[in-house]
Amino acid sequence: MSTSASADVLVIGGGVIGLSIAWRAAQRGMRVTVTDPAPGSGASNAAAGMITPISEAAYAERELFRLGRASQRRYPEFAAELTRLTGEPTGYRQAGTLQVAYDADDLAVLGEYQALQESFGVPAGRLTSRECRQAEPMLDPAVRGGLLAAEDASVDPRLLTRALQAAARLAGAEIIRQPAAEILTADAGRAGAGRRDADRGGGGRADAGQAGAGRAAGALLGDGRQILAPRVVLAAGWSSGSIAGLPAGTVPPVRPVKGQILRLRSRPPGLLARSVRGIVRGSSVYLVPRESGELVIGATQEELGADTRVTAGGVWELLRDARTIVPGITELELAEAVAGLRPGTPDNAPVLGPSALPGLVLATGHFRAGILLAPVTADVITDYLATQRMPDLAAAFTPRRFARPAGRPAPGRPRGSELPLAARRNAADEGARP
Amino acid sequence: MSTSASADVLVIGGGVIGLSIAWRAAQRGMRVTVTDPAPGSGASNAAAGMITPISEAAYAERELFRLGRASQRRYPEFAAELTRLTGEPTGYRQAGTLQVAYDADDLAVLGEYQALQESFGVPAGRLTSRECRQAEPMLDPAVRGGLLAAEDASVDPRLLTRALQAAARLAGAEIIRQPAAEILTADAGRAGAGRRDADRGGGGRADAGQAGAGRAAGALLGDGRQILAPRVVLAAGWSSGSIAGLPAGTVPPVRPVKGQILRLRSRPPGLLARSVRGIVRGSSVYLVPRESGELVIGATQEELGADTRVTAGGVWELLRDARTIVPGITELELAEAVAGLRPGTPDNAPVLGPSALPGLVLATGHFRAGILLAPVTADVITDYLATQRMPDLAAAFTPRRFARPAGRPAPGRPRGSELPLAARRNAADEGARP
Repeated sequence: MSTSASADVLVIGGGVIGLSIAWRAAQRGMRVTVTDPAPGSGASNAAAGMITPISEAAYAERELFRLGRASQRRYPEFAAELTRLTGEPTGYRQAGTLQVAYDADDLAVLGEYQALQESFGVPAGRLTSRECRQAEPMLDPAVRGGLLAAEDASVDPRLLTRALQAAARLAGAEIIRQPAAEILTADAGRAGAGRRDADRGGGGRADAGQAGAGRAAGALLGDGRQILAPRVVLAAGWSSGSIAGLPAGTVPPVRPVKGQILRLRSRPPGLLARSVRGIVRGSSVYLVPRESGELVIGATQEELGADTRVTAGGVWELLRDARTIVPGITELELAEAVAGLRPGTPDNAPVLGPSALPGLVLATGHFRAGILLAPVTADVITDYLATQRMPDLAAAFTPRRFARPAGRPAPGRPRGSELPLAARRNAADEGARP
Repeated sequence: MSTSASADVLVIGGGVIGLSIAWRAAQRGMRVTVTDPAPGSGASNAAAGMITPISEAAYAERELFRLGRASQRRYPEFAAELTRLTGEPTGYRQAGTLQVAYDADDLAVLGEYQALQESFGVPAGRLTSRECRQAEPMLDPAVRGGLLAAEDASVDPRLLTRALQAAARLAGAEIIRQPAAEILTADAGRAGAGRRDADRGGGGRADAGQAGAGRAAGALLGDGRQILAPRVVLAAGWSSGSIAGLPAGTVPPVRPVKGQILRLRSRPPGLLARSVRGIVRGSSVYLVPRESGELVIGATQEELGADTRVTAGGVWELLRDARTIVPGITELELAEAVAGLRPGTPDNAPVLGPSALPGLVLATGHFRAGILLAPVTADVITDYLATQRMPDLAAAFTPRRFARPAGRPAPGRPRGSELPLAARRNAADEGARP
């Protein structure tokens, strides 16, 4: 097959990021095509759906916190609009997050979180052990104290991606269930011509050459179809760097960071009123309740390549830590254990904006924060598509930050030693885990 | 519908017990019908498949140990014959069992097992901690010691029930995928007439009346069909007592005892060479390796009625204890968690032989030992069907032992206080579990 079709924007990847961009871009009148072999089945499928910017910011810094806060503020309308347009629920609920510490060391880490949060200008609501249990009576009495973030929310990522697909289609986007096999490029002077370099004699990958030699022109799909588009948004999560045809210098430095989560079922609902994050003997765990009675427990962080096996050790660690702070979970049905692959980056922050290849826009590397950052990512990328200018809010996340000479970290990005204690201890834990 | 069919023997229940009986009875020339809505899907489906008579005997006594040993001795030929006749594997392998103790208290329990075993005339191979690790290098070095039972074996219960279905059919048995809704009885003087009592004017259940007023005549199936048979074998596991139409005095005292197990996948196989049973801080756990690389971890014991939910707490306990003695399991894929309902009885021993209702034969209550006891159960029940006489080997398991006046335990049966320490501690654990 070598049929071809065209669009204004081709979005590679139908997870929460790609679908949000496709929806917003289609709403602005662009002709949008999304390509994904199984939309919503990647990291989005294994995400818990917490909308908790401060927790994620602890892994990076102020700029990411600002981006997360901006996205959090957009969520109520983002979710409401999706449901209004499609009739589909998203599971959005703003019930807050209670972050708790289990032992004395954990309490010290909680204090660091509080200081970090206050350094960002956000007063933290510190709770005593007793106040924690008043807020969440199922907490173990040994919990030492907590921080309450009342503005935090959560969403059901599986409902969200379903609603996003419906909304994108309603706005005119086409979703094709195919993988993108190769990015197509064209001579800069022939922008829009859309012929595959390979057609001119060589292998597509070899011919792609250095960025600067051409511009993005679309993609070749797994079934042989070509989708020609002058703008290509690469939003394929952890696999964004491994699509053929990306010129050197445009490959986003994403890697898969495995996360295992559990879905428990509480009937009737109500074990927890809000999301609970725990620091438990140096490990992190979260419990996210949904109105349906589902309770999501997450998540491991494992550097094992593209491995999505659910393991005995992963499940055990999650249950160990979750039951330490909420013993009552042991009575709940374990409905599912699943693993997903987050797109990690060297600085744990997303990669947003134009790449070195004209026409190729990156929207990947969201690591643990893809659900949180979907609304703002959609807005900034769509702004860029419409105006050729990235909003200031996202300037720090430019792909160009990774193009620096080795040994010179990008300004404003933390290295390992600058991470807060909790993140460092987790990193150490990871290394010791099987 | 009220069509009817007839057989010499109707077996109610297509688990490992019912299918084994059906196969052996059909081999002896009886016309056999088995009825089960989903053969092999009950307790057999969640069984690990250990063939370890001493371990089970610890829960009861000498008579059960004798029965288990007799069954164990029949297993090699039972399994080989099944495969020879059907071409289907059973997963039978005789690799032994290593029972290990984790802490000092556990070691004391192990000593009690050893004494029990030797009192049964079976020398126990006591291993030091070092010898345990020589036999099974993946054991945690903290393991204090063990008992090696070289004759023990295991089978894959899912393969076994599949092979049994094929063998039963090859021998001429019919397997109907319907539940037995009601036991049919007939006047003793009209044996074989097969009319439902209900046809004579009243409700089937109410008319069934006291045993002695008639004899078993078959069963009414869920789809309205009647299967008429002068001999009815009730082998429906934990639900054997709840089928309508059983006259008072014939209802077997079985109750569901929930067991959760995990199936892990080891690639390549070889984490363990043989089944390992652990006594771990007073809890029991076992790990049964298969040649396929599957590793089964079991099992909880929960008295929660007919509840087959997999729970967070059950999975956590199994993983906790299993990883304590074999830390390497954490790296394995967790392929499945499943719960089954064992047929428990007041004395933890099976109920085998003729009931107070002529023509109704019981083969249930095998509790944790259904897989182990299948060959011998099939033989003794088939002997009874052919000769109207129960072999001596099974005499202690007569249903009549439960018909005694309250307060007088059957002779030779242990009560709670006579159970070995491990069983008592487990029983105490159960009470404390959610």
